[in-house]
Amino acid sequence: MPSSRTDAIDPVTFAQDLIRCPSVTPAEGGALDLLQSVLEDMGFVCHRLPFEEDGTDPVDNLYARLGTASPNLCFAGHTDVVPVGRAQGESGGWTVDPFAATVQDGMLIGRGASDMKGAIAAWVGAISSRLQDAGPVPGSISLLITGDEEGPSINGTKKMLPALAELGETIDHCITGEPTNPAELGTMMKIGRRGSLNGYITVEGIQGHTGYPHLADNAAHRLSKMLASLVDWRIDEGSDHFEPSVLSVTQIDVDNAATNVIPAQGTARFNIRFNDLHTSASLEQKIRDRLTEAAGPGANFSLDIVVSGESFLTPPGLLSDLLTDACTAVTGHKPDLSTTGGTSDSRFIKDYCPVVDFGLVGKTMHQVDERVATADIVALTAIYRHVIDAYFKKAAA
Amino acid sequence: MPSSRTDAIDPVTFAQDLIRCPSVTPAEGGALDLLQSVLEDMGFVCHRLPFEEDGTDPVDNLYARLGTASPNLCFAGHTDVVPVGRAQGESGGWTVDPFAATVQDGMLIGRGASDMKGAIAAWVGAISSRLQDAGPVPGSISLLITGDEEGPSINGTKKMLPALAELGETIDHCITGEPTNPAELGTMMKIGRRGSLNGYITVEGIQGHTGYPHLADNAAHRLSKMLASLVDWRIDEGSDHFEPSVLSVTQIDVDNAATNVIPAQGTARFNIRFNDLHTSASLEQKIRDRLTEAAGPGANFSLDIVVSGESFLTPPGLLSDLLTDACTAVTGHKPDLSTTGGTSDSRFIKDYCPVVDFGLVGKTMHQVDERVATADIVALTAIYRHVIDAYFKKAAA
Repeated sequence: MPSSRTDAIDPVTFAQDLIRCPSVTPAEGGALDLLQSVLEDMGFVCHRLPFEEDGTDPVDNLYARLGTASPNLCFAGHTDVVPVGRAQGESGGWTVDPFAATVQDGMLIGRGASDMKGAIAAWVGAISSRLQDAGPVPGSISLLITGDEEGPSINGTKKMLPALAELGETIDHCITGEPTNPAELGTMMKIGRRGSLNGYITVEGIQGHTGYPHLADNAAHRLSKMLASLVDWRIDEGSDHFEPSVLSVTQIDVDNAATNVIPAQGTARFNIRFNDLHTSASLEQKIRDRLTEAAGPGANFSLDIVVSGESFLTPPGLLSDLLTDACTAVTGHKPDLSTTGGTSDSRFIKDYCPVVDFGLVGKTMHQVDERVATADIVALTAIYRHVIDAYFKKAAA
Repeated sequence: MPSSRTDAIDPVTFAQDLIRCPSVTPAEGGALDLLQSVLEDMGFVCHRLPFEEDGTDPVDNLYARLGTASPNLCFAGHTDVVPVGRAQGESGGWTVDPFAATVQDGMLIGRGASDMKGAIAAWVGAISSRLQDAGPVPGSISLLITGDEEGPSINGTKKMLPALAELGETIDHCITGEPTNPAELGTMMKIGRRGSLNGYITVEGIQGHTGYPHLADNAAHRLSKMLASLVDWRIDEGSDHFEPSVLSVTQIDVDNAATNVIPAQGTARFNIRFNDLHTSASLEQKIRDRLTEAAGPGANFSLDIVVSGESFLTPPGLLSDLLTDACTAVTGHKPDLSTTGGTSDSRFIKDYCPVVDFGLVGKTMHQVDERVATADIVALTAIYRHVIDAYFKKAAA
């Protein structure tokens, strides 16, 4: 497993090179090409996996693997970035060109610096230094890089994984390089995510006159009691690795122009972010029971549940242990094993192998003047290197 | 107090004459002119009291008084009628000309037969018979007749009462001739009415992301709890003469297209029909306290109350006693003293003197083929005559 590259890759310079590729979803912007060329110089075998689907933009993706043996330690990420938002020169806009990759006062500023070209550069830098210092690993190192993480996430990781499985590729463990640290590098990794579902309630009553409510069946009354019951519901107390599940009523509509008319129909929508104590199916049954009780005898209502994603957890184990050791060694911090916050492509990867998210500081991601400390890129490179060495030391043992 | 009329008035014939005047609100239709001419023939002094106001139809009204002494027993009513609805010849329409005052099988059919030209004719017939049999009363008998009861009720009784007070007119007791009997004459009078108010709630919260509800203040949650608290509220158990007050939520709106956004604003509207245990002011304070408690600490909401009418009661006494005796004597029924159902011009009159509603059977009012038994018109004439005689006997004593 020889490297054809002689100079070790500087991760800050490489992050700058990647930022200078304007790869706003779904544009490739030259970023995948650049990454592929660098990886091929290091001896990686690269596969481009473009996907398209009616009604969506075609997206290009890259899978690269160095080595053919097991185990295969993968880094998942994306080269696409969100739009710049307010442009340079606009009030409240960027203070620098978002694709110039300017370094100011020790900060690398540019779209994707934090989310997540900086982390890709750190992973590539870690492999490069490993190959230089200690030679090839007893197994494989790979990168699963999509151009569709910030967009609809239809033609990216979700389709790459089954396609790679069909090609006979096996990934044993995966680190997703999303920015997970709230303010300081080394303080938080994400070992799972909450699930999310939306519920749609429709109540049918019987219209009537407000002077004679006993002759009507007020849909607004049924609905008010049902919603109050949802609002009062303490779904759980949280689990070992998750905060309590939370419910938000997001819409209510009982339309009725006349002040003396009892309304016959009402609708409402709610969202639940749920932890690993539930599946969407187990939760749906609980919701249905709760609404039936609150609606009262004789109620006529329907409930439709649309699942955005199930909750998942990679229980503390090899990956989180390695990352904890690495963070402690490099930064002195012991990272939290968190399940908070928004979703990532790990929701697809978890069906294939254990996966943990760990990357840079996410404080400025998606904002104007997105930035990371160049020192953090260097430190993240060291952390990834630490993980790679320890992972394959264990594998060889 | 001599009568210039020699023949007693036949109330059924006079009811027919009135129905033949097509006085759909706000049209006078000749009905007030006819009534005035008959009353003037009987010796009444008549005042026409037309009113108009920007944005409303001008309306003509009539006040007629026989005698100048106290007490003054008044009959309040209206010659205007509601539109015919489905015309003769249409499917489900009238089977006769609604203004022909046809008598079929003992029933007088026509718009206003029940509501309330039949009752006006009975009152006039009662006075006529009294004058013929027993001569003038020791006091005054009057009629307060509007052409704006079935319309917006702005240019009718509401304006006549203060105008008459300015002219020095005093009314001591009043019978409003609305159809109060559900199915059989002599079974129900109305001694008061529930009040009605509409409440408008606006809740202001703080928008947020459903993944982070602790950073937001969900207006839909506050509103759901507030409305459930209103729905659960047993306002009272009813009073001696009133059913329990009732509340109906009539509209809810929390508009929000995004499934992952916590809504910042919500509105709702409710109606309360309240009995004599409350005024709108006492109720508003209770509503406000209740909503404040249900909304929870830190809630930002507004409540606007619009009062349609206060509740009122003419406690059982002279008028209801006289009507009960008269109904018992003429029909054999002892009438209920009710406060149910829709409103009447008595809501204005109650500020000037005791008032009770009693008239014909209301079963077909506002419908096609509105009808009353001619025998009921004759019996109501006898009941009114009984009341007049007994009232002035008491006054003379």
